Amino acid sequence: MENKISNSQVTPWDVSDVVDYEKLLVEFGVKRIDDEDKAYLSSLAKKKGVKEHLFLKRNLFYAQMDLKKTIQDHRDGKPIFLYTGRSPGSGHMHLGHLIPFEFTKYLQDLFDCNLYIEIPDDEKFLFKKKITSISDVIEFMKEDLAHVSAIGFDPDKTFIFRTTEFIKQMYPLVLETAKRITFSQARNTFGFEGQSNIGQVFYPAIQIVPTFFQKGQCLIPCAIDQNPYFLLQRDFAKKMGYEKNATILSKFLPALNGPKGKMSASNEEQAILLTDSPKQIQKKINKHAFSGGGATLEEHREYGGNCEIDVSFQWLNILFIDSDNEIANLRKSYESGDLLSGELKKILIEKVQEKIQFHQIMREKAIEEDLLERYMYSGSLAKEMWNKDFMNN
Amino acid sequence: MENKISNSQVTPWDVSDVVDYEKLLVEFGVKRIDDEDKAYLSSLAKKKGVKEHLFLKRNLFYAQMDLKKTIQDHRDGKPIFLYTGRSPGSGHMHLGHLIPFEFTKYLQDLFDCNLYIEIPDDEKFLFKKKITSISDVIEFMKEDLAHVSAIGFDPDKTFIFRTTEFIKQMYPLVLETAKRITFSQARNTFGFEGQSNIGQVFYPAIQIVPTFFQKGQCLIPCAIDQNPYFLLQRDFAKKMGYEKNATILSKFLPALNGPKGKMSASNEEQAILLTDSPKQIQKKINKHAFSGGGATLEEHREYGGNCEIDVSFQWLNILFIDSDNEIANLRKSYESGDLLSGELKKILIEKVQEKIQFHQIMREKAIEEDLLERYMYSGSLAKEMWNKDFMNN
Repeated sequence: MENKISNSQVTPWDVSDVVDYEKLLVEFGVKRIDDEDKAYLSSLAKKKGVKEHLFLKRNLFYAQMDLKKTIQDHRDGKPIFLYTGRSPGSGHMHLGHLIPFEFTKYLQDLFDCNLYIEIPDDEKFLFKKKITSISDVIEFMKEDLAHVSAIGFDPDKTFIFRTTEFIKQMYPLVLETAKRITFSQARNTFGFEGQSNIGQVFYPAIQIVPTFFQKGQCLIPCAIDQNPYFLLQRDFAKKMGYEKNATILSKFLPALNGPKGKMSASNEEQAILLTDSPKQIQKKINKHAFSGGGATLEEHREYGGNCEIDVSFQWLNILFIDSDNEIANLRKSYESGDLLSGELKKILIEKVQEKIQFHQIMREKAIEEDLLERYMYSGSLAKEMWNKDFMNN
Repeated sequence: MENKISNSQVTPWDVSDVVDYEKLLVEFGVKRIDDEDKAYLSSLAKKKGVKEHLFLKRNLFYAQMDLKKTIQDHRDGKPIFLYTGRSPGSGHMHLGHLIPFEFTKYLQDLFDCNLYIEIPDDEKFLFKKKITSISDVIEFMKEDLAHVSAIGFDPDKTFIFRTTEFIKQMYPLVLETAKRITFSQARNTFGFEGQSNIGQVFYPAIQIVPTFFQKGQCLIPCAIDQNPYFLLQRDFAKKMGYEKNATILSKFLPALNGPKGKMSASNEEQAILLTDSPKQIQKKINKHAFSGGGATLEEHREYGGNCEIDVSFQWLNILFIDSDNEIANLRKSYESGDLLSGELKKILIEKVQEKIQFHQIMREKAIEEDLLERYMYSGSLAKEMWNKDFMNN
């Protein structure tokens, strides 16, 4: 995507080089998730008999807008709903793409609330030059939908929709949204320029509109690069008679080949795809996982490994090892040189294989049960949404 | 509407002061309809047993883009189709609004071809501040649809559609169109600025897209202020695999109260509405029709009337009196002072009453026969359009 926010390396379309997540807090006008926030979510989790989510504990989800207000509303028994999405067409889904969805499922369990998942099958066509036909997106979209239907969302409280399919129902609200956003605002937020096409300029309305799908507090779990849309929403939501949306924001999963930017599906060799076999996973991690270990066995034994840049350690820390003791021991053992890079990779390989295999089983099960059909059309919330008249809202 | 083309007083949203139609030819990059064009249309008319249309003879339709190419295609037996529209929400339809529709019907008869009529029920919401809800447009829209269904279009070759209702079907094509128009182009064409909302910026895609509803040469009969959309279409139509559209362009009907700009429905007292009674018509013309007659009876008898600024004469000339002799005699008699202003108005009143009454009868008939249902849903072309898959075009 050609547009870029001038003073940031992170836009909804492009993330480059090493991300300074501290700087992003200021740039994106968001706050850190604090201990109070975590304590409330943990107390909810406890009631449901589940643990604090590892993504929270290890600060993969680390920032937020109005999370406190969302929590207060929930305390007060006011309605809350979740919204997230997945834009098809850029490549196959990989491990990093599971993060917002897994966390969203966790939040849906905690809040026991409605969830809207937008599949904006128009976005990539508008933003990618190489996608020359809308139908180019369709195969990716079908694949993505199957993955998303495997996450375990509540089939009666989750509505998954494709933009091109739901556009008629949502169009009145899209227009209301578009009328509230000036070109200047869109330019300042997304860096549009004269060469941007008018579909790109309009697109923010498409991504913002689900925050108005129902009354109540909307909370959006997503990667931090998506926050500009939802910052913009806050300028006019009240005027439209809705709540300002809240977000809960994650960092990116470090790329397999080095802690730079986010894992990209455009280089499939260096990303763990959700369709990878155990063998492929083993091969990719062994070959590409960026190591913080010593250059030679001797060096490693003498100076130890560097956990701060070792992708295997980071993935284990963020995604897999829940016990604080266990991860501390692993760090100690790697930094001391006792644990070798290959041994660390072996631990990771098994965890990733297990996770991907579990996802694949759930995916097959979802396909067998035709869960997608419930999420998209016949579940309670889906049915409600297809019958909703936003024209006379 | 706030946007204005800097170097012109005519935009698709606003026409002010006296229009210099000669200057517009240059400004809008269009050519005059010449005798050769007229001769071909007359020859087609002759075959159908009808006369040359008065709107052509009296140069109300006076300009065009690629009319010659359209004629050549028709000569060669290549497919041709018509497209026009009506944007609801600005007020009730008046006599001036019949002009493009009547002429379009004439052309449909001549070419025996498909016709698409867009009712962009999203436009006024995006462009008018005072329209604060999409549903505000609905009553106007229903009224407009009833009027349009009374014109006599071929029910199996005419598709009338509302944007908000047909948006899902047309959305893939809308996206393809939007991707081809840069913000710069839209700004240069329509005068968008930072304060324009992103819905306005996107809207040209909505108005242009029916030119791609089928293969073949699209000809658009409309008032000249709409030409900028269709000039823009010509920049990228070929790249999308379609023909550059052609237009056939009318001047505005002079306003009842003076030959300045176009008749506006926003002052209903000074416009002849399609729902007016004979009595209302009589009263409006007597009270408001701008007269080129003398200030007093004596003056008029001495110096005569001025046909160039007399609205009654102009309307008779453009809309009603087909015989060149008859109109020449009328001019002579008015300019000599023999015919009084009140007498001229009386002639006009009868003609307008007759025309509006005919329209009202046709409207009742169309309602009785539920013609609109055929135009919108069950006629051959309508059915074809609702089943068309633009996604896999």
